[in-house]
Amino acid sequence: MKAFATLALRFQGEHVELLDQTRIPAEECWLCIETVEQMFEAIRSLRVRGAPLIGVAAAIFLARYFESGASVMDLKIAAERLRSARPTAVNLMYCIDHLIACIKKDPSGESFVAAAEQLLDEDIQLCETIGRVGAEKIADGDGILHHCNTGGLATAGRGTALGVIQTAFEQGKGIHVYVDETRPLLQGGRLTAWELKKLGIPYTIICDNMAAGLMREGKIQKAIVGADRIAMNGDFANKTGTYSVAVSCQYHGIPFYTAAPVTTLDFNCESGGDIPIEQRKPEEVRGAAGSFGEVIWSPEDALVYNPAFDVTPADLVSGWILDKGFFNQIMVREGQLKNLKQE
Amino acid sequence: MKAFATLALRFQGEHVELLDQTRIPAEECWLCIETVEQMFEAIRSLRVRGAPLIGVAAAIFLARYFESGASVMDLKIAAERLRSARPTAVNLMYCIDHLIACIKKDPSGESFVAAAEQLLDEDIQLCETIGRVGAEKIADGDGILHHCNTGGLATAGRGTALGVIQTAFEQGKGIHVYVDETRPLLQGGRLTAWELKKLGIPYTIICDNMAAGLMREGKIQKAIVGADRIAMNGDFANKTGTYSVAVSCQYHGIPFYTAAPVTTLDFNCESGGDIPIEQRKPEEVRGAAGSFGEVIWSPEDALVYNPAFDVTPADLVSGWILDKGFFNQIMVREGQLKNLKQE
Repeated sequence: MKAFATLALRFQGEHVELLDQTRIPAEECWLCIETVEQMFEAIRSLRVRGAPLIGVAAAIFLARYFESGASVMDLKIAAERLRSARPTAVNLMYCIDHLIACIKKDPSGESFVAAAEQLLDEDIQLCETIGRVGAEKIADGDGILHHCNTGGLATAGRGTALGVIQTAFEQGKGIHVYVDETRPLLQGGRLTAWELKKLGIPYTIICDNMAAGLMREGKIQKAIVGADRIAMNGDFANKTGTYSVAVSCQYHGIPFYTAAPVTTLDFNCESGGDIPIEQRKPEEVRGAAGSFGEVIWSPEDALVYNPAFDVTPADLVSGWILDKGFFNQIMVREGQLKNLKQE
Repeated sequence: MKAFATLALRFQGEHVELLDQTRIPAEECWLCIETVEQMFEAIRSLRVRGAPLIGVAAAIFLARYFESGASVMDLKIAAERLRSARPTAVNLMYCIDHLIACIKKDPSGESFVAAAEQLLDEDIQLCETIGRVGAEKIADGDGILHHCNTGGLATAGRGTALGVIQTAFEQGKGIHVYVDETRPLLQGGRLTAWELKKLGIPYTIICDNMAAGLMREGKIQKAIVGADRIAMNGDFANKTGTYSVAVSCQYHGIPFYTAAPVTTLDFNCESGGDIPIEQRKPEEVRGAAGSFGEVIWSPEDALVYNPAFDVTPADLVSGWILDKGFFNQIMVREGQLKNLKQE
């Protein structure tokens, strides 16, 4: 496998390495991933995160696993194990299915590594295209609300929603990003703020519950989020709190976009009701934990509701920014997302 | 001054004592308040919090300060100092103005202590009445969303919004409370959860950004919040994030109530636009801190937006639950809140 380095995934000739995102912004620590269980744990514990990056990282890991002598049966067992680490992440399923199909076509496995490398290159290209498509929607002077993390830490390229923001910024548009901190895991306050700072893009961190107030004050002109899974009717699952952003945008008449690669589309999923939502550990809501430390502020045995994702219905979405172009409400209602399967 | 003890304020014959609410739920620690600066710091640092309790606690402190030999001039200087600790808290202004008026009428100061004790007793009674008025709006089986903290830690009595919930529970209504954790200071996750646990009322803590999703799932039938200041047109200021709750309720057709004593009404304030909103320290949003520890998860120099309150416009409010009765949209639009000044 050829050597490469993205913001959070790299291969220098020996091991697949992941930037441990749980330790950002305090330190940049790279993990050597040598076993299936290490990869499983990295996905499960959000050391590698972001729907597109999870898929690419799993593929690159499997390719290296194959190069290191794993049998086809080993690969299939490893693929099943990794698949179970994040049941909502459809890109992970897509990448794994794609590689398994390669093996079936070519049992010698020679095309396997090339297929994984292609997934990586494609993701980088997808981000470029998404960035260009989405940046057309951004005007000079826009205040842009962003939820969770969707940039170079979430993909192999420049990201989805954050890639749109970066592209608009590079085009010279004077923008300001309002960064939802994104409880409970604080991907916004930890990761997106770190990325925006690296890129030199002006930003302000807010608590998630402040977004509606900023909209009322006229500070926000657009909201852009990523997507973890998009159903055929345009409903989509994304990080908890996305639905709340969409409702607030609707009330204030603010355009609300989701940006994602076509690999995020689930052609077997008719509507949002079909998307499984994982409940995560109650400790995440009872406090906050990470490389920055660990604190618990609630009563220890407090009951907690902690879904990893929520579903935003298509009628709240102003547009779907995909690498195959921009899709508006009418196009999605006509079923045009389904047509993307053939391409 | 007579001895008394409420959930978070007491006087046992020597010093005014405050339950240090920054240390709940981990420990119950009472602070002896002996100087004006200690009282100022306790208000400023939210050791004593909740609009009604701040006012009563300041009054009780000033009464004890007078008993300890403070002159009328000392009292006036102390009153000004305490008034500046939380500029948005209108109950604080009300209680201080009331006591200063007592001194003007009776320069000997003999009625001063009695006036402070009356403010305490009135607050306890107000909570009882608010609880009864509001509980009529709660149905058996309701899921109730609550934001911030509005119970016995926020008042001298059983609270405002949480007092309504407690009263409905005592009436035998099977309710479940969804507790917004209330970033950035986590009054819900820390304090409201602690109070509900003490009361034996079923509850679930959620991150603020999950409320809209729960509404969509049909888990929430009512939302009740407190108020820090209510304008004559019914607009009101309350803890940051309240406006977001109101918008989500509007979108889902869920009744949204505010519960408060009449002392929260600002008769000099025509609409929400007249309410000053304090910006608080950026560190609060960059991390979380309290007796539970201190963590910073964002880049150290990250720009932050951190208003203590937001303003919810009257048109999003289904009803104002006051100690003078229930006021609906029509009554408020007719200007009936203004009539409460005469009583």
